[in-house]
Amino acid sequence: MIAIGGQRKSIDEVGEFGLIRGISNLVKAAKNQPAGIILGIGDDAALFTPRPGHTAVIAKDILVEGVHFRHAWSNSESIGIKAMAVNVSDIAAMGARPRIAVIALGLKGSESDRWVFELYRGALKVAEKYHCAIVGGDIVSSPKATTISVTIYGELSPRRPPLRRDAAKPGDVIGVTGPLGLAAAGVRLLADDTLKLEGAPRMLDAHRRPEPKVLQGLLLRWAGVRCAMDLSDGLLGDLPKICEASEVYAELIEERLPIPHAVRWGFKDWFDLALRGGEDFELLFTCPPENFALVEILFRRYGCPPPIEIGRIVEVNEKRAQIRMLKVDRRWTDLEPGAYDHFASQTT
Amino acid sequence: MIAIGGQRKSIDEVGEFGLIRGISNLVKAAKNQPAGIILGIGDDAALFTPRPGHTAVIAKDILVEGVHFRHAWSNSESIGIKAMAVNVSDIAAMGARPRIAVIALGLKGSESDRWVFELYRGALKVAEKYHCAIVGGDIVSSPKATTISVTIYGELSPRRPPLRRDAAKPGDVIGVTGPLGLAAAGVRLLADDTLKLEGAPRMLDAHRRPEPKVLQGLLLRWAGVRCAMDLSDGLLGDLPKICEASEVYAELIEERLPIPHAVRWGFKDWFDLALRGGEDFELLFTCPPENFALVEILFRRYGCPPPIEIGRIVEVNEKRAQIRMLKVDRRWTDLEPGAYDHFASQTT
Repeated sequence: MIAIGGQRKSIDEVGEFGLIRGISNLVKAAKNQPAGIILGIGDDAALFTPRPGHTAVIAKDILVEGVHFRHAWSNSESIGIKAMAVNVSDIAAMGARPRIAVIALGLKGSESDRWVFELYRGALKVAEKYHCAIVGGDIVSSPKATTISVTIYGELSPRRPPLRRDAAKPGDVIGVTGPLGLAAAGVRLLADDTLKLEGAPRMLDAHRRPEPKVLQGLLLRWAGVRCAMDLSDGLLGDLPKICEASEVYAELIEERLPIPHAVRWGFKDWFDLALRGGEDFELLFTCPPENFALVEILFRRYGCPPPIEIGRIVEVNEKRAQIRMLKVDRRWTDLEPGAYDHFASQTT
Repeated sequence: MIAIGGQRKSIDEVGEFGLIRGISNLVKAAKNQPAGIILGIGDDAALFTPRPGHTAVIAKDILVEGVHFRHAWSNSESIGIKAMAVNVSDIAAMGARPRIAVIALGLKGSESDRWVFELYRGALKVAEKYHCAIVGGDIVSSPKATTISVTIYGELSPRRPPLRRDAAKPGDVIGVTGPLGLAAAGVRLLADDTLKLEGAPRMLDAHRRPEPKVLQGLLLRWAGVRCAMDLSDGLLGDLPKICEASEVYAELIEERLPIPHAVRWGFKDWFDLALRGGEDFELLFTCPPENFALVEILFRRYGCPPPIEIGRIVEVNEKRAQIRMLKVDRRWTDLEPGAYDHFASQTT
């Protein structure tokens, strides 16, 4: 926990998550915060109630050149697709529908007009797919790095509770909506163009054009799931967030982890790549086994790939690690939590 | 007008406003845009109707180090104040109330944790003042320039129409809510620390801690005003936007322009500084004279500084300039429109 107003520390020292915790405390301590805020800082998106019986969701992300994309690796259409998709994914992770998007661009000035229009074309492709309107934004100068910030306003039907990070219960099944590690493998491919792999187009697509799981989010809520988030920092980056928010531990089963063969065969460090690489944008969720069965039925009925059960939520047990895994050889091993922290040591 | 998909041009060539026009066309041509969008790209903020009878407003801005602020010129509290204030101002310019703010930070990593917390403290000061909640956001790495993006969700009572840019009518009075040029003078003071001027603290404050005119925006709507915007690019940068959107011309009266003495006496180019310098965040509005009288009454009743009548809206007359001014010597002079364009030649 960061003591606000205490010793001055560099952000590299404090880390992204320490910083968010500090900010969250500051905001909570603020006076005059209006009523109607259901979920503030710390989940995928913020929930609030503009009118009784009407729940709104806001998600916001920034993509910075050199950090989240490179001009040499992605054309501007893919950057537009990605900027929208990561935000739609945050909305999906609440079990909500995206409605309105606002895009702000910080441009170096050396981009061509076509570059900007292609970016919007990409963003519009995602917007159209999910019936979301792009309604405005801002263009400013950002001489040192192209920067794209997207905000999405979404809506949640009031009948069922939203998907939150702090609702996991011991006994819950842990599920994911799809494979892990493809996007991170795609980045690896782009960084080292001597790599020629089977499955490369799928990996590159996973990095460049992530598909947010809006329908799955809605179906999860329909099936009575209460706890979910989207996988942006990898399973071992994100599952600890659920564990901390819900005050539970987790057990994974190695042989169930949906790591594609192309990732296993293509990279020596495939395990870390798949579990810490990030940007999968699949949904990670937990629910009682009977709800998981319902999720399977609903996903099949609506044509989604089947959900994958990868482990269980267990009670906190100080003698064990927060996350441990039953290996293929039937032994338990402790897994070190590890997100891609934007400021601290990077695991990818 | 920029032909989309036509010749590739650099953004410096196209300019910010050409780019926005091109994007606006692209978005309008998109399929599948949901119903309920009242006002899209091109006004201060986007309006939409999440539910019948309930109008929402979204405003979004990015502030980039070196472009909108400098670490050496503003402490992080002022940067937080400004980042929130410019967005609240966009909401005020629609005649709406801010409700929810989301802040995304792109950090270089060399900022201290206290720097970030002070920034939030500044943002919270503005949020508290206008009864707006800060509910979430994102922190990412932006190694080359600290970047702050704020999105504000606001609400508009459904009884009266919003303030828009395209509602000026010939015969309307042109009004502003306060003085012009203080913020630009403040920037000039910061850039040249040999300048010692009377009124300097007020100028610096105008730059560092702009006060959005939320109450004035509400009162303008109450008084039946239909056309307004906030002055972020200076009178000669912003009035042409009203003229273009409303298809009208404007006439200003020099002696009425509220340019403070400290600005007139402090700078040789005071006229351009005050009218093109930007970031005043006063409201510029137009309305029939009888409504202006009502605005005066309401502003007085609610303790706002009196509105200033600075000219008239007239019909388009191809023989004249879009904006002309009756000088103190009773002669007319044409004024060149000139916004601070973030990419093209800068007038400040």
